Amino acid sequence: MLELRLVQGSLLKKVLEAIKDLVNDANFDCSATGFSLQAMDSSHVALVALLLRSEGFEHYRCDRNISMGMNLNNMSKMLKCAGNDDIITLKADDGSDTVTFMFESPTQDKISDFEMKLMDIDSEHLGIPEAEYQSIVRMPSAEFARICKDLATIGDTVVISVTKEGVKFSTRGDIGTANIVLRQNTTVDKPEEATIIEMNEPVSLTFAMRYMNSFTKATPLSSTVTISLSSELPVVVEYKIAEMGYIRFYLAPKIEEDEDESKPQV
Amino acid sequence: MLELRLVQGSLLKKVLEAIKDLVNDANFDCSATGFSLQAMDSSHVALVALLLRSEGFEHYRCDRNISMGMNLNNMSKMLKCAGNDDIITLKADDGSDTVTFMFESPTQDKISDFEMKLMDIDSEHLGIPEAEYQSIVRMPSAEFARICKDLATIGDTVVISVTKEGVKFSTRGDIGTANIVLRQNTTVDKPEEATIIEMNEPVSLTFAMRYMNSFTKATPLSSTVTISLSSELPVVVEYKIAEMGYIRFYLAPKIEEDEDESKPQV
Amino acid sequence: MLELRLVQGSLLKKVLEAIKDLVNDANFDCSATGFSLQAMDSSHVALVALLLRSEGFEHYRCDRNISMGMNLNNMSKMLKCAGNDDIITLKADDGSDTVTFMFESPTQDKISDFEMKLMDIDSEHLGIPEAEYQSIVRMPSAEFARICKDLATIGDTVVISVTKEGVKFSTRGDIGTANIVLRQNTTVDKPEEATIIEMNEPVSLTFAMRYMNSFTKATPLSSTVTISLSSELPVVVEYKIAEMGYIRFYLAPKIEEDEDESKPQV
Repeated sequence: MLELRLVQGSLLKKVLEAIKDLVNDANFDCSATGFSLQAMDSSHVALVALLLRSEGFEHYRCDRNISMGMNLNNMSKMLKCAGNDDIITLKADDGSDTVTFMFESPTQDKISDFEMKLMDIDSEHLGIPEAEYQSIVRMPSAEFARICKDLATIGDTVVISVTKEGVKFSTRGDIGTANIVLRQNTTVDKPEEATIIEMNEPVSLTFAMRYMNSFTKATPLSSTVTISLSSELPVVVEYKIAEMGYIRFYLAPKIEEDEDESKPQV
Repeated sequence: MLELRLVQGSLLKKVLEAIKDLVNDANFDCSATGFSLQAMDSSHVALVALLLRSEGFEHYRCDRNISMGMNLNNMSKMLKCAGNDDIITLKADDGSDTVTFMFESPTQDKISDFEMKLMDIDSEHLGIPEAEYQSIVRMPSAEFARICKDLATIGDTVVISVTKEGVKFSTRGDIGTANIVLRQNTTVDKPEEATIIEMNEPVSLTFAMRYMNSFTKATPLSSTVTISLSSELPVVVEYKIAEMGYIRFYLAPKIEEDEDESKPQV
Repeated sequence: MLELRLVQGSLLKKVLEAIKDLVNDANFDCSATGFSLQAMDSSHVALVALLLRSEGFEHYRCDRNISMGMNLNNMSKMLKCAGNDDIITLKADDGSDTVTFMFESPTQDKISDFEMKLMDIDSEHLGIPEAEYQSIVRMPSAEFARICKDLATIGDTVVISVTKEGVKFSTRGDIGTANIVLRQNTTVDKPEEATIIEMNEPVSLTFAMRYMNSFTKATPLSSTVTISLSSELPVVVEYKIAEMGYIRFYLAPKIEEDEDESKPQV
């Protein structure tokens, strides 16, 4: 028996919007610790990891570890029927091949239950080791989304370069080149507007723009985003989810074989 | 000579938006009583009845009963050119094959007149007898629109079931099932937010979702909608128009031959 | 060396939005006087003239007159990456085949530079003589845009007729006819809401609707528009740009050979 009651139901709605374009089908894993997901995108290039810790739920009952395969597009269709202020409860009986999403309006005058069929999905859980990163950038998530969207109109790849002074996003395309520099900035009125650079070593890495852009679908979940970079490792783009967890996106840098194509003026 | 002056011209704009997708061409009937329309939708499944009583007009002159055939799409194009605060006057000379819509801005600085050709449309006026209904539900029109829109993402038909406690909207589709229950609720701050159930007999009827969804185009006309249900009769979905009339949509229930298709879990 | 610093960078963004659909490629001419453009639309029917006077820039350095050929669509893509509050600086080295747009956020925490390739464009600069017009109409630009948009749903041409009392916009199409009359109105609370008619001689001219509609893309640049009409001359539709210049659109009237097509009821 599984019963997870999430008072701030809009979080689950936003989580689905953040990942449904990247991943079609995925297993949600439920244990005493929390509700989690790990999945490769459909072209097996990027990895998504989601964690919602059990403490974040108003009520969390998970009698035994289970893994529930869901079509994220269908799940998103159902969650879109929840109001933004609704309480969402996720329920599954032992051995059932369905999951039920219950939505309660704040006034309790409207109660909806949506039942969705589960799927069998083969998946392998990758262990992701904790790592040291050469540079970590924390910045406003809306600014990061804006930069990715803007640069995508010019080129297909983005070079992210970090120095002590700031972080530079660059691209190059048929119509020209673009460089956007954000300065480290810790003295802002609101902490979520800060751009904070933790640099152990300068780093400059190239990524496919379209994945970066896709990751920014998680922007409504958090006002800040953390980008962790190392030349040997996939970048981690992390959005914290309130007090209860995170979505992390992992993407391997492009190897710069062809200087012209992948290395805008740096 | 016909001359109808409607100070709240936006009402006529909203009426057209409510019915133009359902009905292509229709006769508007004008008599001393008021301005009315009765028409089947283009697939002859649903019926629309509109009434704007003469008392609702600032000036109402209709020398003799006439019936004016109009293409609702063209009429809507012209009415969209009226400002939301404009006074709309509808004029037709006796025996003319055109109708004129005049729009006056509140300051009288802008006066528009649009002349549209009339059409000959064969139509039969159905007598709709007053009936007793087993159950009548009055609820916020925006909530009804939201429910129809949400359920349409899951299934093609909707079962509306009324008991003393509340009204349930259910559907079933490839991806799963959905049930939305609204409780009777008369103790709200604003009367237009109440859900009021007048039940003589419990009733459960199945309807094509796409017509229900189409009826909700009338939502801007009224903050509440009234749904009258009887197992022997077409459902009536009614939106009141200010103090001056109504739009009513009629739709026959689906006969539940095929349990699987038409009868979601009730 | 060219360096033009425009504190109100959003003006340049709006200028591009105003002309990019009409003109594909054009030469921007830079001299001590200012930054200007003159170009025919791609079907060689309408003419656009832009002037941004040097005094309107915070910093204006133009060592020698140059003409820079730009693809307006690509330029617009780059300018869209500037924030609405950004300062925009346009830079070009002597003899360079590129131009650089630099965007500075108000807080100086984000600095972007976009480099675009220049093009060789053949163009002839037409001398446009100052002229006396039979009638000049000044009116709210949003009202003019609304009228053009509304009439375009009915017909393909617009007749603009000016008398002392007002200005009339008329069209005719398959579904009927439309006339919109604006009265002269100088006693409004805000001067930008006035409709002012300066009439030396009444005039009535016919124009292609689709160009008029296209000119109204400049509406965000100015709250008023000035329309100068003479039977012998192209109409001039002018939008002032803050204190620093203007965009003017020129369009020849249609010759009314075919009364039915080009002459709605006047």
